[in-house]
Amino acid sequence: MTAKTYFSNGNEVRLFEQAYRQRLPVMLTGPTGCGKTRLVEHMGALLGRPVVTISCHDDLTSADLVGRFMVTGGDVVWTDGPLTRAVKEGAICYLDEVVEARHDSLAVLHSLTDHRRTLYLDRAGEVVVAPDTFMLVCSYNPAYRSSLKDLKPSFRQRFVTLPMSYLPPDREAEVIAAETGIAIHVAHRLVNCAVAIRTADAAFHFEPPSTRVLVTAGHLIAAGASELDAAEACILAPLSSDGAITDGLREIAVATLAGADTSS
Amino acid sequence: MTAKTYFSNGNEVRLFEQAYRQRLPVMLTGPTGCGKTRLVEHMGALLGRPVVTISCHDDLTSADLVGRFMVTGGDVVWTDGPLTRAVKEGAICYLDEVVEARHDSLAVLHSLTDHRRTLYLDRAGEVVVAPDTFMLVCSYNPAYRSSLKDLKPSFRQRFVTLPMSYLPPDREAEVIAAETGIAIHVAHRLVNCAVAIRTADAAFHFEPPSTRVLVTAGHLIAAGASELDAAEACILAPLSSDGAITDGLREIAVATLAGADTSS
Amino acid sequence: MTAKTYFSNGNEVRLFEQAYRQRLPVMLTGPTGCGKTRLVEHMGALLGRPVVTISCHDDLTSADLVGRFMVTGGDVVWTDGPLTRAVKEGAICYLDEVVEARHDSLAVLHSLTDHRRTLYLDRAGEVVVAPDTFMLVCSYNPAYRSSLKDLKPSFRQRFVTLPMSYLPPDREAEVIAAETGIAIHVAHRLVNCAVAIRTADAAFHFEPPSTRVLVTAGHLIAAGASELDAAEACILAPLSSDGAITDGLREIAVATLAGADTSS
Amino acid sequence: MTAKTYFSNGNEVRLFEQAYRQRLPVMLTGPTGCGKTRLVEHMGALLGRPVVTISCHDDLTSADLVGRFMVTGGDVVWTDGPLTRAVKEGAICYLDEVVEARHDSLAVLHSLTDHRRTLYLDRAGEVVVAPDTFMLVCSYNPAYRSSLKDLKPSFRQRFVTLPMSYLPPDREAEVIAAETGIAIHVAHRLVNCAVAIRTADAAFHFEPPSTRVLVTAGHLIAAGASELDAAEACILAPLSSDGAITDGLREIAVATLAGADTSS
Amino acid sequence: MTAKTYFSNGNEVRLFEQAYRQRLPVMLTGPTGCGKTRLVEHMGALLGRPVVTISCHDDLTSADLVGRFMVTGGDVVWTDGPLTRAVKEGAICYLDEVVEARHDSLAVLHSLTDHRRTLYLDRAGEVVVAPDTFMLVCSYNPAYRSSLKDLKPSFRQRFVTLPMSYLPPDREAEVIAAETGIAIHVAHRLVNCAVAIRTADAAFHFEPPSTRVLVTAGHLIAAGASELDAAEACILAPLSSDGAITDGLREIAVATLAGADTSS
Amino acid sequence: MTAKTYFSNGNEVRLFEQAYRQRLPVMLTGPTGCGKTRLVEHMGALLGRPVVTISCHDDLTSADLVGRFMVTGGDVVWTDGPLTRAVKEGAICYLDEVVEARHDSLAVLHSLTDHRRTLYLDRAGEVVVAPDTFMLVCSYNPAYRSSLKDLKPSFRQRFVTLPMSYLPPDREAEVIAAETGIAIHVAHRLVNCAVAIRTADAAFHFEPPSTRVLVTAGHLIAAGASELDAAEACILAPLSSDGAITDGLREIAVATLAGADTSS
Repeated sequence: MTAKTYFSNGNEVRLFEQAYRQRLPVMLTGPTGCGKTRLVEHMGALLGRPVVTISCHDDLTSADLVGRFMVTGGDVVWTDGPLTRAVKEGAICYLDEVVEARHDSLAVLHSLTDHRRTLYLDRAGEVVVAPDTFMLVCSYNPAYRSSLKDLKPSFRQRFVTLPMSYLPPDREAEVIAAETGIAIHVAHRLVNCAVAIRTADAAFHFEPPSTRVLVTAGHLIAAGASELDAAEACILAPLSSDGAITDGLREIAVATLAGADTSS
Repeated sequence: MTAKTYFSNGNEVRLFEQAYRQRLPVMLTGPTGCGKTRLVEHMGALLGRPVVTISCHDDLTSADLVGRFMVTGGDVVWTDGPLTRAVKEGAICYLDEVVEARHDSLAVLHSLTDHRRTLYLDRAGEVVVAPDTFMLVCSYNPAYRSSLKDLKPSFRQRFVTLPMSYLPPDREAEVIAAETGIAIHVAHRLVNCAVAIRTADAAFHFEPPSTRVLVTAGHLIAAGASELDAAEACILAPLSSDGAITDGLREIAVATLAGADTSS
Repeated sequence: MTAKTYFSNGNEVRLFEQAYRQRLPVMLTGPTGCGKTRLVEHMGALLGRPVVTISCHDDLTSADLVGRFMVTGGDVVWTDGPLTRAVKEGAICYLDEVVEARHDSLAVLHSLTDHRRTLYLDRAGEVVVAPDTFMLVCSYNPAYRSSLKDLKPSFRQRFVTLPMSYLPPDREAEVIAAETGIAIHVAHRLVNCAVAIRTADAAFHFEPPSTRVLVTAGHLIAAGASELDAAEACILAPLSSDGAITDGLREIAVATLAGADTSS
Repeated sequence: MTAKTYFSNGNEVRLFEQAYRQRLPVMLTGPTGCGKTRLVEHMGALLGRPVVTISCHDDLTSADLVGRFMVTGGDVVWTDGPLTRAVKEGAICYLDEVVEARHDSLAVLHSLTDHRRTLYLDRAGEVVVAPDTFMLVCSYNPAYRSSLKDLKPSFRQRFVTLPMSYLPPDREAEVIAAETGIAIHVAHRLVNCAVAIRTADAAFHFEPPSTRVLVTAGHLIAAGASELDAAEACILAPLSSDGAITDGLREIAVATLAGADTSS
Repeated sequence: MTAKTYFSNGNEVRLFEQAYRQRLPVMLTGPTGCGKTRLVEHMGALLGRPVVTISCHDDLTSADLVGRFMVTGGDVVWTDGPLTRAVKEGAICYLDEVVEARHDSLAVLHSLTDHRRTLYLDRAGEVVVAPDTFMLVCSYNPAYRSSLKDLKPSFRQRFVTLPMSYLPPDREAEVIAAETGIAIHVAHRLVNCAVAIRTADAAFHFEPPSTRVLVTAGHLIAAGASELDAAEACILAPLSSDGAITDGLREIAVATLAGADTSS
Repeated sequence: MTAKTYFSNGNEVRLFEQAYRQRLPVMLTGPTGCGKTRLVEHMGALLGRPVVTISCHDDLTSADLVGRFMVTGGDVVWTDGPLTRAVKEGAICYLDEVVEARHDSLAVLHSLTDHRRTLYLDRAGEVVVAPDTFMLVCSYNPAYRSSLKDLKPSFRQRFVTLPMSYLPPDREAEVIAAETGIAIHVAHRLVNCAVAIRTADAAFHFEPPSTRVLVTAGHLIAAGASELDAAEACILAPLSSDGAITDGLREIAVATLAGADTSS
């Protein structure tokens, strides 16, 4: 399960690099598992910058981002948070699923995402100007948007936005085969299964299966599982536990995984 | 009340081991008391790995999982949490009823459940790469799902999912007799009672009785209680305190526990 | 107001003891003041085990149950909570009105209520295996159940459940006379008054008067209050402050306390 | 504005004393300013016991009642709260407007209000048995009851309940004249004004004027204010700021304060 | 922008002084900017008492009012809050917009606003009797009242209530001219503009312009702004940002500020 | 991405300076990215005063504004917050998006925005009178107003309010060309695209594109991106991720960016 070559599916690599050259922040949007995280890792390697990843969540405070005072040896010492360290190193700072963060935590990003490119550490009384190599990248999945917790328009307008989607089927099968070592025709059957479910998606109202779950299924097959067992455990079961829906999904799997042995 | 042999009811042992060999995380789903915890203990013994169990709840913070700074001798020292200890030991870390946890606490699992297999301890400034023997296992009961508190699709898609259910009646009776020492025909009557209630379940809208409550009833019978008294205290009373429903349930119990003495 | 003999009203003493012998946890259910607490005290005396009582409430944390680190002499020392002390002593630990506790606090009970009978003190890094004499007993009043705050089915199924109710009238009058020293015919009149109100209960929609309020009324009578004054202060006034309802209740009291003097 | 003689308006003094002799807790109910606090002070003097008053509110924790650990000289020392001090001194502990307190804070009162008469200081590991002279008294105003925040029936049934109401008009006028030094016929006019508003109360839906506001008006009159000015500032203005209602109230005041000068 | 002479618009000064002489607390009610704060400052000067002002808000705790323990030199020392300092100094303590405070914070005022005139510092174990010169004054704006956050009737009845409103137009113009140095006929035009908007108020449903905004407009005019520019920036713009309403308001301003130059 | 010349679009510079001379606070209103922050920076340079910027958010406490006690060398020392530092330096303190702040945090501004011009540091026991050069400036976007979280009328009336909006098209194109170095006719096409979307805005119900996003698009074009790619990434994608809306927006972009090459 180690990272492999990045497969581009559009002009996202070029626009990402242009934004980097102009010192502009980037927002990646798209469905779960379509490769947002891998693009960031790929660009870090391409641009020769380290990547500092921060998984956003409800309870992430601005102190978790910028740092806090900590007691050491009886005294209170300021300790930089991951965002501050990324700014000082001129790294790519990647805020994964930024919509999950508390909006108040995001306020510290304002002065980093406009012409100031500066981080104000109010509590430490320090002002950090970002070097040219610092870049802020955020990601979010628009399918999760709710009226209660969406990014504010003024926040979204601070970024160069790069919408991403699934790879074309042939590229997707290549990725799966390359990452798991299974035969390319087996990988194609897994992709066919996923495409069929993604097409039926609007009727079922669930998050469609990502490239990631196909890779996981490929790993199980490589370990000896039947195609159908692997598809059930990695593609179908995570989608729904409703009996009727599960039956419908299994029909799709049986139909698309026609070459699947049933010896298990 | 000590743990006994694990009774498999499908291919869950084989798929669990294949996931372990491929370093993939596993999600166990199924109703209360159908044996999820016992499967994990069984696999720990089979694979020769210690099991670190964490019962999830509303108030579990990510610090409870990964660790925190603590004051010792006037100084502040980082102390690993159970998840961090499990990663470092290469143990099986079992998050029981993971849906109960605050979603923000689960964000620390992201980098452990994809190709990185790495735990970022932001506050300690430490990065822990999981050894090959580390495995993350979660469980949840889909029957409890509400729109307010369900696992996010992107989270569910990170796992190999193994749905589990009750044992077939004969296996279930064997388990009860083996664990409590009561006669096999008495155990069969308890299972018949449970099956009858599980079948009537859709009408009553309550959680069906689990193998666990049948084992508990068996223990009371072994201590001298009548079958009906044991069934009332262990199977019926926990289901409902509504008078009409209780009467309906008692009818089922009297009918299925036909051989029950009424001397108590 | 000291505790007296326990008056059993069913097979609860026997089943409680059988559960104790099998090392099974017990859940007592029933209306306010029907004797749940007294049964636990009685069983503690009968089984020769100390009783550790914990009144549950909204703000009870798991640290309040299992213990916490505290600063002493400049250093941080772990201090056991009442649950941990009960486990270590092999005592009966009684969680009164368990439904009031925050559900996350109850998660620490899981491993104590199944075959493990073990308390995991994650923060202290300690594992305590309960001795055979340890017993966990919980109580709750199903009449208070709301959809917002009910015990989870999987939690209820961990216990041997013993439903309790009021004593039969004659036993109840004996208890009142024995505890307060008033004449048995006066105690009977108080019980008649309570039974009449309990019967009218469905119409009034309030919690019926418990044995406890009859004992309190008996104490006031023993101190010189008239029967009617005592009934008004201890039985009627706590039920409602609505004028119309109060008038209806007073009619019941005047009718049932026919021998009541009116000199006050 | 110093406390004067207590004017009883029923059998509340006698029943309070009988409850004290039987070591029973008392609940005082009734409208704002009808004399609940003064009754407690009066009984404290009569029974020769100090009174410890605790004003309840939303944020009162059980630690505020029983005590907490505090850092002193680098060490942590337990400090008794007012409830614990009252128990140890055998004082009358008066919880004013107990319905305002968080219910979890009230859980510590359970063991003090039944036959145990004992305070369990779980955090300090101390058990305090109340001496015979300790008495717990609570008050609340049923008019404020809402479904969201009412006392639980099982809590109310722990107390001898003494409902209180306003004094009869003649006694009320005597109290006002005695406390403020104004002429008795002026006091009668103020009482007439209050009685007229209390009678119109159901139409206006506001809390009726209490004896306390009449005493306040009397004080202003004693300082030279006209009766009408004093009534407007102390009786009418606190009731409503709605123009139409205020006009209606002023008509009542002008009518009942017929002898009021209009020189102001 | 320094405070000037207080312009009374009723009998509020006399009643305030009578309340002070009788040691009674005062509640000032009325719309924004009608002079409540200035009355308190005026009375402080008149009575020769310092004024301690506390702006109330959602997060004001009782500790913010009465004081708290603070760590100094390794030890914990009690530090008086502004209310406690005001009581000890015998000052006028002014709680501005008291309705904004959390109700639990207000509970500490109870014993200061009845015959006890005493502050109980439960946490410090101290009892402070207020000297005769201590006075508590609160203010609130009834227009903001909502069912969610209104003062309790029992709290309002503890105060002598003085309703206040805007000055009559001629007095208001005098105040503006005196405070800003603009010509009296310009001040009259500003007042005319405000009165026209206050009259149209019911239709627009916004908070009417206060004397304060007229004074601010006067200051801008004194600095060289045109009357219309000043009125737009200080009177109209704060009222609404709805285009249609703003147009309607501008018509009023143009009509009433007839003498306004349009050179800006 | 460095700040350039300020382009005024009305009388806001003159009124801002007049307010400064009269020591009056200013409120800037208007849509996202219309230049509020740049006006403040411009005025700071013009008036020769430093600007202290505070980005407001849900979790900003008054301690974050005024300061707090912090442990240093074992002792507790008061540390000024950014507002207190701005007051003491006589700087311009700019509260960006003030409506986002918790209302209780804003209470500390009251005494700074009326004739007192004073900051009360209750916890530090310090009173700071603002020098004449201190100025408070706030901004907010009325389009975000909701009934749940709007500024109170009494708060808005404390400020000289300056409504701002987008620059006229020709000025806007000049700004874009000047800041990014792209040709003026390309900048005009970007402005035409934005104006077309702003006009269609009412139908789409989203926040219209600001000058800021046009500048960002200009930067990408300067780095080699096609006009259409830059418009998609910087202008269209941040507005919506709904397929139908995105298609409609792309038609507008294609039509207005007629000269756009399609070689990318």
